[in-house]
Amino acid sequence: MARKSARPAPAAGPTVKSFFRVVSTDDARRLIAATEPIGAETVAVADAAGRVLAADLLAREDMPHFDRANMDGYAVRARDTFGASASVPAYLELVGVVEMGRAPRLRLGRGQAARISTGGMLPAGADAVVMVEYTDEIEGNTLASHASGRTVEVQRGAAPWEHVLRIGEDIAKGSKVFPRGRRLRARDLGALAGIGTTKVRVHRCPRVGLLSTGDEIVAPAAKPKPGQVRNINAYSLVAMIREAGAEVIDYGVVRDRREALQAALANALRDNDAVLLSGGSSVGTKDIALEVMQEFARSEIVFHGISVAPGKPTILAKALGKPVLGLPGHPQSALVIFDLFGAPLLRVLGGEAAADVFRPQRTVRARLGRNLASKAGREDYVRVALEEAGGVLLAQPMPGSSGAIFNLVRADGLVRVPASAEGLDEATEVDVILL
Amino acid sequence: MARKSARPAPAAGPTVKSFFRVVSTDDARRLIAATEPIGAETVAVADAAGRVLAADLLAREDMPHFDRANMDGYAVRARDTFGASASVPAYLELVGVVEMGRAPRLRLGRGQAARISTGGMLPAGADAVVMVEYTDEIEGNTLASHASGRTVEVQRGAAPWEHVLRIGEDIAKGSKVFPRGRRLRARDLGALAGIGTTKVRVHRCPRVGLLSTGDEIVAPAAKPKPGQVRNINAYSLVAMIREAGAEVIDYGVVRDRREALQAALANALRDNDAVLLSGGSSVGTKDIALEVMQEFARSEIVFHGISVAPGKPTILAKALGKPVLGLPGHPQSALVIFDLFGAPLLRVLGGEAAADVFRPQRTVRARLGRNLASKAGREDYVRVALEEAGGVLLAQPMPGSSGAIFNLVRADGLVRVPASAEGLDEATEVDVILL
Repeated sequence: MARKSARPAPAAGPTVKSFFRVVSTDDARRLIAATEPIGAETVAVADAAGRVLAADLLAREDMPHFDRANMDGYAVRARDTFGASASVPAYLELVGVVEMGRAPRLRLGRGQAARISTGGMLPAGADAVVMVEYTDEIEGNTLASHASGRTVEVQRGAAPWEHVLRIGEDIAKGSKVFPRGRRLRARDLGALAGIGTTKVRVHRCPRVGLLSTGDEIVAPAAKPKPGQVRNINAYSLVAMIREAGAEVIDYGVVRDRREALQAALANALRDNDAVLLSGGSSVGTKDIALEVMQEFARSEIVFHGISVAPGKPTILAKALGKPVLGLPGHPQSALVIFDLFGAPLLRVLGGEAAADVFRPQRTVRARLGRNLASKAGREDYVRVALEEAGGVLLAQPMPGSSGAIFNLVRADGLVRVPASAEGLDEATEVDVILL
Repeated sequence: MARKSARPAPAAGPTVKSFFRVVSTDDARRLIAATEPIGAETVAVADAAGRVLAADLLAREDMPHFDRANMDGYAVRARDTFGASASVPAYLELVGVVEMGRAPRLRLGRGQAARISTGGMLPAGADAVVMVEYTDEIEGNTLASHASGRTVEVQRGAAPWEHVLRIGEDIAKGSKVFPRGRRLRARDLGALAGIGTTKVRVHRCPRVGLLSTGDEIVAPAAKPKPGQVRNINAYSLVAMIREAGAEVIDYGVVRDRREALQAALANALRDNDAVLLSGGSSVGTKDIALEVMQEFARSEIVFHGISVAPGKPTILAKALGKPVLGLPGHPQSALVIFDLFGAPLLRVLGGEAAADVFRPQRTVRARLGRNLASKAGREDYVRVALEEAGGVLLAQPMPGSSGAIFNLVRADGLVRVPASAEGLDEATEVDVILL
């Protein structure tokens, strides 16, 4: 009697036959985007780089809060300079110097000017700055009314408010600086400091528990016996989870036994907002993992399989209402799936706007070095090496097995072959997702 | 008597007239690339994400260190399957199951097969794996010589070593994994763990002292009086210095006085590998800063001005042999210059290969939304907002002053107008450097 054997290795527990829900990559993204974000906390702006705003951030003050010179030169009344040119200059009386960091006590009257540096506060009466390049300062009285003894020759007319940053022009008090769900960049912090925002309300950093499965896996410090391999995924995943803005506890390797997995998962769920199961979708673990997950309260299999290569047997479930992501055991698949779906999941959990989390962080445009075959209905991610040839950037698909980890490490990026395509032709322009 | 006044605000000290060396952006990059890197230390691989290799990293072991199945299926002798097809299958005797994580004790003889899962170790005698999809397992004796009582029907011939990752195929012992000067990515750590590398020799993280100058600057927590502004640059620069892989001490604001700057610089140079002077190239500070820098032993003005906008008055000097970078005070200029030249300087100091440090981290291809004028001989970086219009990504140059910080914060990226161009035409394809 012939029997199709779907799993050549013997199963360690009963199989879950009732559920096999393979979703498209679009559906997987939609389901991940629907993940409920975790709670918020208040942190100092100085510590907020990379944190995600939990509420819209409004400007507490006008920026600038005084009319500010944007160039080095002379504060003037614009109308006093109208029509001035190199051949027919305007002559203004120099009545003083604006000191940096102080409100000037002087006040410009008609036909008067004051020296000012970039960032200086415009004196009362002034409504423009003439750049120093279009002026000369002249010693002596060339006008009857002089008091200072110096005259400014203006060789170009200034428009009202030219080279002045007006009150609230950079940002107006009460206006929205950033929306909720935005991840603050390093460069954003100064601007917030500038308007007096010293604390911000942000989402907590998700806490993630990492479990590795696979009876062939040993710790990196161990000397693997024949048939064993070191825990490759965990070292990369720990660092990649941190890059996704989360904190991580690495629980090490769990044996592919029902009881061991259940205890480890219960433990990890108790102390974390989400659990990653490296190798949790692999043959030998998958069925146990699916069954164990479903025994927790508030459990659900969100999907079980994505139409993607590499990494099809990816599992997203919920247990105790918390996301549990089962990654393939193959290192390449695990890392690619973490990039495409794992990091976005953690970022949504951390409150980031779903529209932002699936955008590749870094891409470069290149031409395919050769034809790429692909199965329609499945989104393929192909490892490529980038090379420059005659001023053209070529993306060369890399040969080799998806079981080889250095193959991925040495790749420059991934090229996506859409599910609707049956491949891509040589010389097609593609976006290379840089690794 | 007419006099061209280059500095309308009064100088607080004597001016340095002897030195004014404006360099092209290419020269600035070349001079920065020549910076001597700091020393090395040994760290655990688990902590090495983002660290820079101080020596070539060689593979300590073969990966894999045994011939490994790359698919689920049956280990076979390829020659026993030659010519097999669905209509004319080969029949092999099933002699056992390869357990994960163990060296199989069985040995394949002629006409024999063993069940194997992905990652399993090939038994002696086997030289290929047939995917489970092209097999059926048959109960009973269909061949005379059967011992196990089961037969494997193989419906497709296997080439020698098909679906096997051979010893050293991923990486061979002794071969170079990564060159010196490479910054390790999170994803690289697992592969290193996989070949038993638990420690790596990396450059120390550069220690950077940040001094802010400008008499108008107050701390972010202070309430600025008219004419004063909060220290915008420091908050952003601290976080951006960390992103460049360095540690930072923020020394706060130094008054624009010779003695104050000298004491602060001496203090910062003692405890750090480099010093950043925010506002150090601004009017009112520049001349004092230049003079003070040159009073230290092993001092040199590397350049004083870059043909770039924004940020022309950038200073690179050495004092006590350590780099001192004077950034413009204008927040936008300071941040753009830090991106273009400051971060690369710190990365070279931290041992990263110079070829890598000037490549923008993230770019996207777009079409210019309107003409951009520019001065030939100067490299311009123009703030743009990205918008999608009819499937085309447009880079819209943003109006507004370079003194406005939110203007930069709200920009999506920068477009570079090369020094050789006198501008760029609307609809030109450009690389947008994402912020």
